[in-house]
Amino acid sequence: MEALTLTTDFGHRDWYVAAMKGVVLSRVPAATLVDLCHEVPPGDVETAAFFLEAAAPTFPPDTVHLAVVDPGVGTERRILVVETEGGVFVGPDNGVFHPFLDDARRVVAAERPDLHRPAPGATFHGRDRFAPLAAALLGGETAADLGGEIDDPVRLDLPPPERHTDEGSDGGGVVLRGRVRHVDHFGNLVTDLPAEWLSSAVSSGVSVEVAVDGHRTDLWVRTYAEIPPGRAAVLVGSLGTLELSLDGASLAEAWGVERGATVEARYEGG
Amino acid sequence: MEALTLTTDFGHRDWYVAAMKGVVLSRVPAATLVDLCHEVPPGDVETAAFFLEAAAPTFPPDTVHLAVVDPGVGTERRILVVETEGGVFVGPDNGVFHPFLDDARRVVAAERPDLHRPAPGATFHGRDRFAPLAAALLGGETAADLGGEIDDPVRLDLPPPERHTDEGSDGGGVVLRGRVRHVDHFGNLVTDLPAEWLSSAVSSGVSVEVAVDGHRTDLWVRTYAEIPPGRAAVLVGSLGTLELSLDGASLAEAWGVERGATVEARYEGG
Amino acid sequence: MEALTLTTDFGHRDWYVAAMKGVVLSRVPAATLVDLCHEVPPGDVETAAFFLEAAAPTFPPDTVHLAVVDPGVGTERRILVVETEGGVFVGPDNGVFHPFLDDARRVVAAERPDLHRPAPGATFHGRDRFAPLAAALLGGETAADLGGEIDDPVRLDLPPPERHTDEGSDGGGVVLRGRVRHVDHFGNLVTDLPAEWLSSAVSSGVSVEVAVDGHRTDLWVRTYAEIPPGRAAVLVGSLGTLELSLDGASLAEAWGVERGATVEARYEGG
Repeated sequence: MEALTLTTDFGHRDWYVAAMKGVVLSRVPAATLVDLCHEVPPGDVETAAFFLEAAAPTFPPDTVHLAVVDPGVGTERRILVVETEGGVFVGPDNGVFHPFLDDARRVVAAERPDLHRPAPGATFHGRDRFAPLAAALLGGETAADLGGEIDDPVRLDLPPPERHTDEGSDGGGVVLRGRVRHVDHFGNLVTDLPAEWLSSAVSSGVSVEVAVDGHRTDLWVRTYAEIPPGRAAVLVGSLGTLELSLDGASLAEAWGVERGATVEARYEGG
Repeated sequence: MEALTLTTDFGHRDWYVAAMKGVVLSRVPAATLVDLCHEVPPGDVETAAFFLEAAAPTFPPDTVHLAVVDPGVGTERRILVVETEGGVFVGPDNGVFHPFLDDARRVVAAERPDLHRPAPGATFHGRDRFAPLAAALLGGETAADLGGEIDDPVRLDLPPPERHTDEGSDGGGVVLRGRVRHVDHFGNLVTDLPAEWLSSAVSSGVSVEVAVDGHRTDLWVRTYAEIPPGRAAVLVGSLGTLELSLDGASLAEAWGVERGATVEARYEGG
Repeated sequence: MEALTLTTDFGHRDWYVAAMKGVVLSRVPAATLVDLCHEVPPGDVETAAFFLEAAAPTFPPDTVHLAVVDPGVGTERRILVVETEGGVFVGPDNGVFHPFLDDARRVVAAERPDLHRPAPGATFHGRDRFAPLAAALLGGETAADLGGEIDDPVRLDLPPPERHTDEGSDGGGVVLRGRVRHVDHFGNLVTDLPAEWLSSAVSSGVSVEVAVDGHRTDLWVRTYAEIPPGRAAVLVGSLGTLELSLDGASLAEAWGVERGATVEARYEGG
């Protein structure tokens, strides 16, 4: 049986996630349900997209991924079904599936009111519309069965990381500029700067300094355990991008950094 | 295989929930386990009852619902098995199954010490008694197999919402009076006032004002997205009752409202 | 199908736990996944060991228990597979499986790079190495298939509880000395002092006083419900050790006690 993952901003102190699971199990009793994350900050579509981009590739390719971070619930915003080689995604058309749109096999606006659950209000499409659609996919229907193709799904405005040569007065250098995509549970700063952009510089012994919000470090390590007490360091994170970390404490707190902060990596030469 | 839901006040930083699941899986390896909620405030039987009332109807009718919010653990309080058309409930006899008693097919006080798990203390009936009973139900035993019927299960003292006509000096009006049943993760105030009591007034354009703890609003919306910045509004929530919400922030915090607060809806005429 | 439990310090606001589950399901789609606990304090190997010791025995004996509390991730620390009568354990060689080492049938240092997931960095062995090893065990491989036996796994330095006779100037007495092993969600202090060491004294009516951090109580109860308002009491906890509790509130907060604090139980005679 295929698995269904659930990503929401519903937290853990409510009955909301359970109600979606109940609806799915009522229609597909043998479904395997996996919580991807329910502590997405309320309405934070970009973080939900990041979590899906990071975790979905580890799941079997026939997995259905349901995302309900949906500040526009009940409005005319469309419901998307995005079919990819690595899984099928169901959720609001608000950018939450941005990372999967370019390589999607099919992007559909769901139009299956016959599947909807009758509901008194318009505030819980997770239970009343998304969960039934996800159940239909688990039950064997395809994206094409659920609605017509569209070519204008909502995308996020995510500036890609940049790499350019800095012809400063004090000699040439290379500057990479990106963002903190996520502050994790440990207070690590996960950036979008690809580590491979720096691999030749680092391996050739060039000093590379990384700066966020006026704080900086040029200490590169391979593992958290190598970070000396009280020092910030850079390492290659689990997604292949630069990550900044402090020994045994939250760097985000120590530096006062939040998601979205600009990150710069800089070295001479290049 | 039937599903088992678990509702507790055990939180997420202990091994308690896992131990109950281990006991169930040891007896019924193929059970489907679903967390309904584990962040019920400690000992808050009324909130647990509300969560079960809200979420249980979404599950298949052969689901077993285990609830362990049990300040009386180890005392002489009975263990209930409540069989309904929509599922079977197992937990302490303290009111946690109040919403299901009126329509129950059978209410039983469990008397099956042969199923109990040997235990050193009397502090964890969730693991030692409730989980084995739930496993027995998943394994095919019925409520009738687990004990004798009773007719005096503990009920909650929940004042029902009221509707009455106010013959005030400034003209007649209608007043509905209820309570905040739950403050959710987003800070929305979920009340027990049935939206249908107001549907004709609202649809005919009469101004309806809703007040909680001295704060009030007469702005009615259909979706969260329609709420203007900084404004409180009323909408029909996912259970068909009135819900109060603030745009993009916690209304409970802004108004300083907690569960149990009195809610009044008022309009002229009627 | 066997179950897999997961114990980590990853918390609930990231995609990390889901990624491990995705890897397992990609290799063993029918696996039953159970969260044991993900709120182990960051790097707190001793608490993870305690949770496993407490909860693992409730699971079926063919369960695989995966633990990722791993401050040494990416270093040369070994990966252990510990096979016992009650389950198989996979995780870092840092003491997290200490409670199971003495009775293990086989302790192995995993050496199966063929199972590893290709990964850009060295920061997420949970996803890249532990999860694949756990999946191999679920898929039918044994500890012996995963590596060679070792006889020097890392152990925790856990002082065992002590019992000795105190020949004080004011008459003889018995003193038990142990530690607070865990402060639970309710603020109860779970100690390592075996209740059976005191059962004859307590049952014969001798006054037994228990002290932690300068606070003390000689009130013994059998259930939480017997504790009078505002009083601290001792009871036999769910693991057969002494537990200290306050009526309806956190004793840990009231007394300012943290995990690791010394506990003393003392009585006259003996």
